[in-house]
Amino acid sequence: MRRQITGFSNPTVKFLRSLREKKHRKAAGKFLAEGLRLLTDARECGHLPEILVMAERRDPHPLLSALESDVVAAGGEVIETSEDILGKITGKDNPQAVAGVFAEFDTRIESIERDSAKIWLVAQALRDPGNLGTMLRTGDAVGAGGLILIDDCADPFSVEAVRASMGAVFTQKVAQARWDEFIAWLRAGPGQLVAASLRDAVPYRGAPYAAPCFILIGNESRGLPEEYELACDLRVTMPMKGRADSLNAAVAGAVLAYEVLDALDR
Amino acid sequence: MRRQITGFSNPTVKFLRSLREKKHRKAAGKFLAEGLRLLTDARECGHLPEILVMAERRDPHPLLSALESDVVAAGGEVIETSEDILGKITGKDNPQAVAGVFAEFDTRIESIERDSAKIWLVAQALRDPGNLGTMLRTGDAVGAGGLILIDDCADPFSVEAVRASMGAVFTQKVAQARWDEFIAWLRAGPGQLVAASLRDAVPYRGAPYAAPCFILIGNESRGLPEEYELACDLRVTMPMKGRADSLNAAVAGAVLAYEVLDALDR
Repeated sequence: MRRQITGFSNPTVKFLRSLREKKHRKAAGKFLAEGLRLLTDARECGHLPEILVMAERRDPHPLLSALESDVVAAGGEVIETSEDILGKITGKDNPQAVAGVFAEFDTRIESIERDSAKIWLVAQALRDPGNLGTMLRTGDAVGAGGLILIDDCADPFSVEAVRASMGAVFTQKVAQARWDEFIAWLRAGPGQLVAASLRDAVPYRGAPYAAPCFILIGNESRGLPEEYELACDLRVTMPMKGRADSLNAAVAGAVLAYEVLDALDR
Repeated sequence: MRRQITGFSNPTVKFLRSLREKKHRKAAGKFLAEGLRLLTDARECGHLPEILVMAERRDPHPLLSALESDVVAAGGEVIETSEDILGKITGKDNPQAVAGVFAEFDTRIESIERDSAKIWLVAQALRDPGNLGTMLRTGDAVGAGGLILIDDCADPFSVEAVRASMGAVFTQKVAQARWDEFIAWLRAGPGQLVAASLRDAVPYRGAPYAAPCFILIGNESRGLPEEYELACDLRVTMPMKGRADSLNAAVAGAVLAYEVLDALDR
């Protein structure tokens, strides 16, 4: 189905805008992603938007035409609207010319196939959606299977997280679990849990990493609870040459993930 | 000098609020930093605020008392005000109980002493203040000398960059230069310029890094201009196992910086 929308008060526009808020995303089970590159990544990974929203004034592009016909063929809806309304929907002054509404993915921990990858990222109480998206992007780069979110994390389906993931939200598996659920699941199969820590830790370079390796990163300001650190199979420490005693959470995860990648690929 | 301020329309409050905008920071040559931890880091690195702003309702703390007396002894101003006004100044709903106004530092490229550190980070057209602050924080962790900002970057003295730096804006040297200024300065002394690149690059692990090593990171969406890459002494490539062809700028800088640190410390 194809239609034009011209008014800000149109119910579909209101629905699309509402997806910028977590409670509305959860109620609808949908989320927003924007930009031709992101939507093309999604399409090539087998994810088509249920609703495709395009600016009336847009440059023609073969990838956009391909996206449009695939959405129509799959029974989805294509909406044309003004740049102003598109900006209202995505919350950006200079919106991308295209956005899509997707059904949220299954994020139960049981949906993870641990043997499908050598590396998994695990974040505990990660509060910043930008950090979350960046961790997804890093996971894609190191060939991780996905990101497991423990305790109360930012929403992986927020516009900010999806944007920072640069499309990796469609290539990386995302799971959400409480700590006790996660640890019970982890211990029911193979898997090494590794954390960056100052507690009884070995240097991160050359540590005995083993696949599947689960790299656990703690909250931005408090780090990991002691109980969680103690539950790890391996605690590693990174050099801190300056005054600070920690790295940005997404940075720590990336430095560690690249080290693990090198160790497991050797 | 010590005084209380109770009104939003007080000229000092207006001045402090104005420092959230770049043009006012540049006009005044001042910037804002918030939080006892950050201000204590600054003090221990020899940087005292010219104006110290404290919430009337605050928990007593020996570090805050030390800060207060040092500011008074140095002829600075101490202001007490409401939490509401402090929130207006820093732009946060739950402001920290203390903020300070500092004179901006000398950011001329000539003020850099290249032999004072083995690693320097260099960012080109870095637009995100969070990425900029994160790179300062990473620089502190790897014992870098500082961050050199090339072309049109985010302002290192913005509240967001200072916040993301977690105090590293006070421990790391910051310089700003156009590309031609930077490259003329660099080539007038020892220094290896290294970039992450796909162009005629060697693997980043085990590459022949040499001190002082200048790690060049490009703009978030466009990467480095070809001319800049070709001017590098060494181009290195990081594994990209997934669909994406790049990492977040601050993440790429950190993964590379930790590799260089390991190589140069060996």
